[in-house]
Amino acid sequence: MQDDEGQDKAGVETGTLTLRPTVAALESWLVETHPVLDHGFVRVIDYMGDDAAVVQAARVSYGRGTKPGRADAALIRYLMRHRHTTPFEMCEIKYHVKLPIFVARQWIRHRTASVNEISARYSILDREFYLPAPSALAAQAADNRQGRDRPLGADDAAVVLDLLRDDASRCHDHYEALLESGLARELARINLTLSTYTQWYWKIDLHNLLHFLSLRLDAHAQYEIRAYAEVMAESVKAWVPETYAAFADYLLGGAAFSAPMLAALRRMLAGEAVTAETSGLGRREWQEMMAALGRD
Amino acid sequence: MQDDEGQDKAGVETGTLTLRPTVAALESWLVETHPVLDHGFVRVIDYMGDDAAVVQAARVSYGRGTKPGRADAALIRYLMRHRHTTPFEMCEIKYHVKLPIFVARQWIRHRTASVNEISARYSILDREFYLPAPSALAAQAADNRQGRDRPLGADDAAVVLDLLRDDASRCHDHYEALLESGLARELARINLTLSTYTQWYWKIDLHNLLHFLSLRLDAHAQYEIRAYAEVMAESVKAWVPETYAAFADYLLGGAAFSAPMLAALRRMLAGEAVTAETSGLGRREWQEMMAALGRD
Amino acid sequence: MQDDEGQDKAGVETGTLTLRPTVAALESWLVETHPVLDHGFVRVIDYMGDDAAVVQAARVSYGRGTKPGRADAALIRYLMRHRHTTPFEMCEIKYHVKLPIFVARQWIRHRTASVNEISARYSILDREFYLPAPSALAAQAADNRQGRDRPLGADDAAVVLDLLRDDASRCHDHYEALLESGLARELARINLTLSTYTQWYWKIDLHNLLHFLSLRLDAHAQYEIRAYAEVMAESVKAWVPETYAAFADYLLGGAAFSAPMLAALRRMLAGEAVTAETSGLGRREWQEMMAALGRD
Amino acid sequence: MQDDEGQDKAGVETGTLTLRPTVAALESWLVETHPVLDHGFVRVIDYMGDDAAVVQAARVSYGRGTKPGRADAALIRYLMRHRHTTPFEMCEIKYHVKLPIFVARQWIRHRTASVNEISARYSILDREFYLPAPSALAAQAADNRQGRDRPLGADDAAVVLDLLRDDASRCHDHYEALLESGLARELARINLTLSTYTQWYWKIDLHNLLHFLSLRLDAHAQYEIRAYAEVMAESVKAWVPETYAAFADYLLGGAAFSAPMLAALRRMLAGEAVTAETSGLGRREWQEMMAALGRD
Repeated sequence: MQDDEGQDKAGVETGTLTLRPTVAALESWLVETHPVLDHGFVRVIDYMGDDAAVVQAARVSYGRGTKPGRADAALIRYLMRHRHTTPFEMCEIKYHVKLPIFVARQWIRHRTASVNEISARYSILDREFYLPAPSALAAQAADNRQGRDRPLGADDAAVVLDLLRDDASRCHDHYEALLESGLARELARINLTLSTYTQWYWKIDLHNLLHFLSLRLDAHAQYEIRAYAEVMAESVKAWVPETYAAFADYLLGGAAFSAPMLAALRRMLAGEAVTAETSGLGRREWQEMMAALGRD
Repeated sequence: MQDDEGQDKAGVETGTLTLRPTVAALESWLVETHPVLDHGFVRVIDYMGDDAAVVQAARVSYGRGTKPGRADAALIRYLMRHRHTTPFEMCEIKYHVKLPIFVARQWIRHRTASVNEISARYSILDREFYLPAPSALAAQAADNRQGRDRPLGADDAAVVLDLLRDDASRCHDHYEALLESGLARELARINLTLSTYTQWYWKIDLHNLLHFLSLRLDAHAQYEIRAYAEVMAESVKAWVPETYAAFADYLLGGAAFSAPMLAALRRMLAGEAVTAETSGLGRREWQEMMAALGRD
Repeated sequence: MQDDEGQDKAGVETGTLTLRPTVAALESWLVETHPVLDHGFVRVIDYMGDDAAVVQAARVSYGRGTKPGRADAALIRYLMRHRHTTPFEMCEIKYHVKLPIFVARQWIRHRTASVNEISARYSILDREFYLPAPSALAAQAADNRQGRDRPLGADDAAVVLDLLRDDASRCHDHYEALLESGLARELARINLTLSTYTQWYWKIDLHNLLHFLSLRLDAHAQYEIRAYAEVMAESVKAWVPETYAAFADYLLGGAAFSAPMLAALRRMLAGEAVTAETSGLGRREWQEMMAALGRD
Repeated sequence: MQDDEGQDKAGVETGTLTLRPTVAALESWLVETHPVLDHGFVRVIDYMGDDAAVVQAARVSYGRGTKPGRADAALIRYLMRHRHTTPFEMCEIKYHVKLPIFVARQWIRHRTASVNEISARYSILDREFYLPAPSALAAQAADNRQGRDRPLGADDAAVVLDLLRDDASRCHDHYEALLESGLARELARINLTLSTYTQWYWKIDLHNLLHFLSLRLDAHAQYEIRAYAEVMAESVKAWVPETYAAFADYLLGGAAFSAPMLAALRRMLAGEAVTAETSGLGRREWQEMMAALGRD
């Protein structure tokens, strides 16, 4: 076993020879920490496989059925388009992430990953908590129960920030005082705010990571978790560029149309001037289809 | 579809006829809410299967191989002892639970369940937070990094409680003020403390529930989650009494001995006066074995 | 515990009162066995939840965020359209299925279910094997490596059937002879053909069942597993009619368009005469889009 | 992307530099194919992590709680003894395996792995089927419904082998004839015997792999799957030697005692001459305990 402190340092200089597939563009992520929000970060700890590993696994499944000479990129696009997901499970990546607890609570809903999080029963959490940048301090959206609208004005923002900072600070001061007084760590931590930072190792396969990204890169995802997804998306681009390109075309940039949407679309293509009222669709479905067609 | 408010009330009076297996002792759990901690509760929403469903599934697997006339209870004990876990997956239960966020964070590590939690992006959380009873306000254990020792003295406890109450109250007051000022709900909630209550629906199969209980009924589990596990254990006893009895004998009350422990045990049984020093075991392993043998 | 033979008989006459949600239309499935292929069947053993349980779980998650008075069916459609999948996990169903081994091998790829299969290490398998009906005895598709083309002519079909029947019969005769000679059951069974029938209990939640059905009802699924999916789809219609209707509109009858497809579609809607060549799409993508638009 | 044919050859000579953890002893497994049974094999395709990665993940979880200077091996033993399983999920391995279909059917019950298997809908299976070596051609156990007894006599074995070989050969000949006649591949394959070889890529994390091995290395596992487990166990020893040593001590070589067993054991240690009759245990439980104590 290697010392887990010394490993990176030794590694930076020399590295180790391996017969495994390696991805040069991802190796630099192993030594760099990518900042997110005010105190968070994303770091790649390890990875397994590459674009070729996806192709190789697909060729086991479809055997002689995959035409010799077929370009790898085309096969990856075919797999993505037809949701043949198992070859993408053959790649794996492990991140070290520092993130606010309220983000961690959204993130952990994805159950198909492995997690080791700092335990506040064993350890004392650092005095770090998330304070939104002014541009992120937004009002509740009026037309969407879960969304944000435009940022608060400068004065309102200052008031909000003071309040968030004061409460998080006081709660952390008291957390430390409670520990000082001898209270069990597992109890003292209940005084911390949801803005407090935690850390974890998070390991997931490429298929499930793409699913995570498709949900968390979405405009409806909370800004704070989206900030993590965007950095992770960059790591995936570096790691498996062909897979990421297919993902961007078929999942991120695509749209799913229902049977009634397809029926309305056929009428439109036949030259009929279909409106929200004559479409047979609900108001929101109509809006969603128009948005996907760039007509909103 | 039935109205989800009216269902229980109508149900209490009449019920509905079904051909599914039904467990009379669990039906009362469908209308009663069992309190846990200061504001929490456990409620059974629905269930599927019973002890007989475990036996029936096992008989599909082992077919003619299961002796006719073999008592069902004996078969359940055999399955439990040999960790034939799949027949226990054939029963399912769904709970409605109200619990502090720090408990929810431990709980959700069990990934083999389905969860729907109140979202504080959509909803406004109630003004309820956990304050430990004086008997639960314990000092950090000296010999165990994650445990609790004896309760604090009355004076210290009063100071701690005031502090926890004040901080949680103030954070919730400010949460409401932030909402009032128009801040997006998804941001305002980051000001809440980890002691704040949340709620969820949690659905799991019997095998995974027993695994959850074996970890969370353990003396090393944090007291607050253990309080939930104890109530849920009562619901399992009502639901599948034979399975619970086997679980209590083989998992809860049992002990796993390593190869070196077994070697030491053989020497002891052969009459040798084995000590910690001569046992070949590490100090903690020796202590654990002595505890399992009731010799500590 | 009830006797697992007597349960259905007793149940047919009386049933038991329960406070759980029940679905009258699915109760009859608990006593009827639905035949599939030549010797197979599908039977519902138990179920948990209904359309209202989906709505109820969603209302926990989105709390006050779900408009009071919003029709349940509209909420179910919203959840399905936006892939809010967790409320659908709150319903569960358990089937007893008899199916050929080659179908079982495809089926088991769905890992999110619980299974108890007859073990041929313990039990002796019945002398039943699948022989396709003449209409199912189809030639290899020329344009599709995994598909079937039209049925064989009557003469060819007769030859094929004789051969399949003879081999399966002889292999089963010898299986019995090997058992007779004292060979271990776990070895004798390796002589059986993949057409041999097996049986299992299969339990899955509604979300994962719909995913299974969306793949196995598809025209590209092998006919024999599709035959099971079609019967199971009927049980889902009986069980959760609103959910099934939304599933049919959004998943079964819908289509996913990629970013390049959407770009081509916009040009078409703008009146341009886009062709396969000018579309910027690969040949197969173009064909798939035309098919979805009813223009092939 | 690399050519998936050329990769190994190029790799053998040069390898690639990486900053990831690398295990010299496992690298040779990347180029060697380990034979199993008459035509099968196990090959390691890729791996992620090492013993140090387990330790590193545990130190994230237990943070400052893990004593500095504590030996890594001791921490791994502690994690294994207390079933702290998540750090072991942080390592991953991917195998290429060739195996008979009846073994594949047992294997796939482990649902926590990723699989890509050759599809006989797309590809034509090779003419290879498993024939047991004479030493493996055993009689049905009399005292155990699923086990094997001693090998058949030479004459009986010869008869059995002829029969297995003839049937598998004829079925494969006819499979080829059916393909020749134009029958769809997905139908022709139903004529093959369960002894036919298939291949897959199988990827799993270390925790779940150890669980697989603990079940499949067991004396009650069928000999043929045990043969695979034994080769894979060697790969795990090469990969994570400290973890494997702890696994061997705590899981493979250990024993779980029930509450009634512990009660009997206490009486024995107190000097009482406990017998099967006076133990309060069932006959089989008593035998199992005596076996674990080396007293059978």
